[in-house]
Amino acid sequence: MSRRVTLAARPVGFPQNSDFALDEVEIEAPGPGEVLVDVLWTSVDPYQRGRMNEARSYAAPLQIGDVITALGIGEVVESNDSRFSPGELVVGQLGWQEYAVARAGTLRPVPSGLDPPTLALHAVGMTGFTAYFGLLDVGRPRPGDTVVVSAAAGAVGQIVGQLAKLAGCRAVGIAGGPEKTRDLTEVYGYDSAIDYKSDDVTAALDGEHVDVYFDNCGGAISQAVYRRLNLGARIVVCGQIAQYNAERPEPTFQPGLLIVFRARMEGFLVSDYASRFDEAARRLAHWVANGDLRWREDVTDGLANAPRAFIGMLNGENRGKALVKVARSRS
Amino acid sequence: MSRRVTLAARPVGFPQNSDFALDEVEIEAPGPGEVLVDVLWTSVDPYQRGRMNEARSYAAPLQIGDVITALGIGEVVESNDSRFSPGELVVGQLGWQEYAVARAGTLRPVPSGLDPPTLALHAVGMTGFTAYFGLLDVGRPRPGDTVVVSAAAGAVGQIVGQLAKLAGCRAVGIAGGPEKTRDLTEVYGYDSAIDYKSDDVTAALDGEHVDVYFDNCGGAISQAVYRRLNLGARIVVCGQIAQYNAERPEPTFQPGLLIVFRARMEGFLVSDYASRFDEAARRLAHWVANGDLRWREDVTDGLANAPRAFIGMLNGENRGKALVKVARSRS
Repeated sequence: MSRRVTLAARPVGFPQNSDFALDEVEIEAPGPGEVLVDVLWTSVDPYQRGRMNEARSYAAPLQIGDVITALGIGEVVESNDSRFSPGELVVGQLGWQEYAVARAGTLRPVPSGLDPPTLALHAVGMTGFTAYFGLLDVGRPRPGDTVVVSAAAGAVGQIVGQLAKLAGCRAVGIAGGPEKTRDLTEVYGYDSAIDYKSDDVTAALDGEHVDVYFDNCGGAISQAVYRRLNLGARIVVCGQIAQYNAERPEPTFQPGLLIVFRARMEGFLVSDYASRFDEAARRLAHWVANGDLRWREDVTDGLANAPRAFIGMLNGENRGKALVKVARSRS
Repeated sequence: MSRRVTLAARPVGFPQNSDFALDEVEIEAPGPGEVLVDVLWTSVDPYQRGRMNEARSYAAPLQIGDVITALGIGEVVESNDSRFSPGELVVGQLGWQEYAVARAGTLRPVPSGLDPPTLALHAVGMTGFTAYFGLLDVGRPRPGDTVVVSAAAGAVGQIVGQLAKLAGCRAVGIAGGPEKTRDLTEVYGYDSAIDYKSDDVTAALDGEHVDVYFDNCGGAISQAVYRRLNLGARIVVCGQIAQYNAERPEPTFQPGLLIVFRARMEGFLVSDYASRFDEAARRLAHWVANGDLRWREDVTDGLANAPRAFIGMLNGENRGKALVKVARSRS
């Protein structure tokens, strides 16, 4: 049998535990070209919130009763595709469940040298790729630029600051609370850190001239940053976590600012860069191996606790990349 | 003597006639490197509204008593610079006044073949350059793209639609009232026209997939267009005339939209392209001469009426590029 977490109700505003259900189904047999995977770790990411709404965004919404979409790492149990063999570790959209059947083409092998393999879910995985393409391709940082990052201690933000340093920039991170703010400068190499829970962000940014704003959060924090843009600034819109639980998100930006600062605001989806994931993985793995890229995981134990980990992440309670270890009693 | 229109009071919200004063001063003598110009036509443009506020934007604000900043065309009366001789027509920041003393380096000759010479104030001048660089460099239209333009019958908008057609695009214009809307399709070559005063803009754009939105207005009209963006859309923020008279402009845009559509929103100032004005002038003059680029002027007679023309333009009353013929009684 395979336990799984499904959507019990569409969250109205902030999600609650009762929006999720835990059930158990028989393990499916993989069809032609499919692979059966024993899921070991599953990921908790802000984009999942959008899938729970009825409205179509860039991806189709989940239906009530569907397994929650999630990236995960697992071990191949049975493979009907020549690319994968039993015992191999793979990463892909496996969902919040103990066993997943996936089309082989949607899976990637976890590189054998990757230690720990969970890096394939963050620094050398989707959130690392998001930081890499968002900062380097969309933000186009130049040495000497000031790069400001919101949700800077989160899964994406922790990588963005370090890539900004590698690119010769000054990195300023914004996070909530003293622990995360300390991590920014002590672990992730930010030059300067702002605690939005205790500091006035606008005042803390006084004197900064923001060349690149890598925005993971939106809302009031972003409005403070908009006031400090430099001429020619680039605003990379990666996420808007402050807006995801609003029943009706309010406009927060005045486009006229882009005239005053001759600035550019651009959104992107990491999936559009799929053809270049290998490039990003190779470089990120290299930087992790040589110590240029540091990271922190926040692991919750047990699939049944995935909803709690997800709600906590939306509340900013995680310190590092939020992951769930899919512990189970094997029968 | 030289009559001039000065700033009598900073407008609060929408400007009024009483915010302007008409006075008369002695004609100044030009200093070394300066030129005395007899102003024949002066221009009325939305950006002038921003200069009347106290806050510094991309340019320093006017002070009370200053002559209103304006582009104009005039005849050189006296020149202390070898580049200009008496009798020549020049274009530059001459202000709302009958005689202007200007540094020679800030003036450009009106090309001798330009007929009428007032083209140097619109289609082959600053508003034409704005359309040219904004659409082609910022918007990057590709053949087959749908280009939507707000304030499409205005000085910039009328050129943008025709450049979009030259670039192989479908052009959709939004303007106010039946005359301007008719001009869009009958004079300026737009494929489709929307009258925001009588049509529901969102409904009128149903079925459109907007690749480039050239935005001159902002506000509610833009919010309707944002709902119809295509993947990879480019929003060119040229002007926000709907916001210029707001005492405190409200945010109108949700940055998260840029993620959904992988879109880019970018502002620009035509002055940043000064090194390429000759390129634009040459091409625009060619297209005007061969009939590819049509235009319409809305001329008000008499310098004293410049404030009225300006207020009318902010109200959308002009049909074509708003100009003032600086008629005077010569002594």
